[in-house]
Amino acid sequence: MEDDSKGAVGLDLIPQLSLDCVIFGFHDGLLKILLLRWKETEEWSLPGGIVLQRESVDDAANRVLMERTGLTEIFLKQFHTFGDLHRYDKKELQDKLGHVISTEHWYDRAVSIGYFALVDYAMVFPNPDKYTDECKWVDLKEVPKLLFDHNAILEKAIQSLRRELSFQPLGYNLLPEKFTMPELMRLYEAVLDKKIDPRNFQKKILKSGIVIRLEEVKRGLAHKSPFLYRFDKERYEEVLEDGGLFFV
Amino acid sequence: MEDDSKGAVGLDLIPQLSLDCVIFGFHDGLLKILLLRWKETEEWSLPGGIVLQRESVDDAANRVLMERTGLTEIFLKQFHTFGDLHRYDKKELQDKLGHVISTEHWYDRAVSIGYFALVDYAMVFPNPDKYTDECKWVDLKEVPKLLFDHNAILEKAIQSLRRELSFQPLGYNLLPEKFTMPELMRLYEAVLDKKIDPRNFQKKILKSGIVIRLEEVKRGLAHKSPFLYRFDKERYEEVLEDGGLFFV
Repeated sequence: MEDDSKGAVGLDLIPQLSLDCVIFGFHDGLLKILLLRWKETEEWSLPGGIVLQRESVDDAANRVLMERTGLTEIFLKQFHTFGDLHRYDKKELQDKLGHVISTEHWYDRAVSIGYFALVDYAMVFPNPDKYTDECKWVDLKEVPKLLFDHNAILEKAIQSLRRELSFQPLGYNLLPEKFTMPELMRLYEAVLDKKIDPRNFQKKILKSGIVIRLEEVKRGLAHKSPFLYRFDKERYEEVLEDGGLFFV
Repeated sequence: MEDDSKGAVGLDLIPQLSLDCVIFGFHDGLLKILLLRWKETEEWSLPGGIVLQRESVDDAANRVLMERTGLTEIFLKQFHTFGDLHRYDKKELQDKLGHVISTEHWYDRAVSIGYFALVDYAMVFPNPDKYTDECKWVDLKEVPKLLFDHNAILEKAIQSLRRELSFQPLGYNLLPEKFTMPELMRLYEAVLDKKIDPRNFQKKILKSGIVIRLEEVKRGLAHKSPFLYRFDKERYEEVLEDGGLFFV
């Protein structure tokens, strides 16, 4: 372990603390995850980085995501802090990434704060940084072995995302302002990775009052013209305060 | 900020990292919180401490809780990491606690990992450590101004506890093995801090399948003999995996 706080890159950083971002992308029924491929390697990881002394950890998360992927104005939510003793092997990292970035001065151990976000991947266009050859949206079912403990971090992020579903209406900023019930349901199905009974789903969502049915239908579909809905923001806030969707 | 990792007390600790424990106690319809009063002061805080290099943050949480309150075998759940720039003022702490513990070598800034637990306070008997005059169960509505940002940490812990309610059956280890529906409901009411409609509650809990009605009633009550229930552990695990109680 280093005993100064300047760290490997000469920055005034908080020693042994890092953060990692799990960016979920949803579009058209598909759930993907944003991964980086390190320069001139086949090694993949989540976008991550360090925390500076002069910034809050939330600000650090936004800065790191921006620096590593170019993404801005993403609502990042902290979900878990990873503090096991052996999250990575420095020697192994040196072998794999030594030609991209010197890992010699990395700490033997770091505690990493995990953040996640859910965005529409058709609207978001990431750009790789100097350590990275590629930022890629990868299907959740095709995620390779990642560096560090990032597969475990991703797994925990998926669990957290699913928990959020039962607590609050996801899709608030993810679906179009007006959406159909099947569109909302496909989002829930993608996140839960299971089929949902449409009638039961519609009944529960309507009973919760978090969506309002509009006097409009969606046109241009092959068979029928389904009603459009929008979120009821006030009711949504109420539900959050009252203990989530179970008690509506 | 210190630039060595030996910290204020000469321990091999992770610099600028700490943790705090929010221990909720429930009994007989009342929800309380475990607070410490620092030696020869009227200053209160949550039980907290540092993370050693040789332990995971989860192990650190259990050790800190044990050292500061004597409590063991408590299931601590991590809920949020607090990383704002100005979580406390070192000068102010020196004035308030200087006679108990030298805060001169404390870091200007520390990031704190929050853990919470929910226990039966009638079954748990905390003991103060050498920095502390008193460990006390305080009614949630009578919490004083706490040191550090501990009021904010407590507030966030309450939110997290409420979220857990809509996701998973609390009370698993908190209620007696066999309990009545009103007993279960009082737990939910205490955590949510609101009245729940008993018929709606019973309907939802039964529909979820997480409890099983026994062929027994509770006797010895003044008016009637309510049915006893127990949790169905297998069904409970299923519900957790499937996205929580909303989709049952």
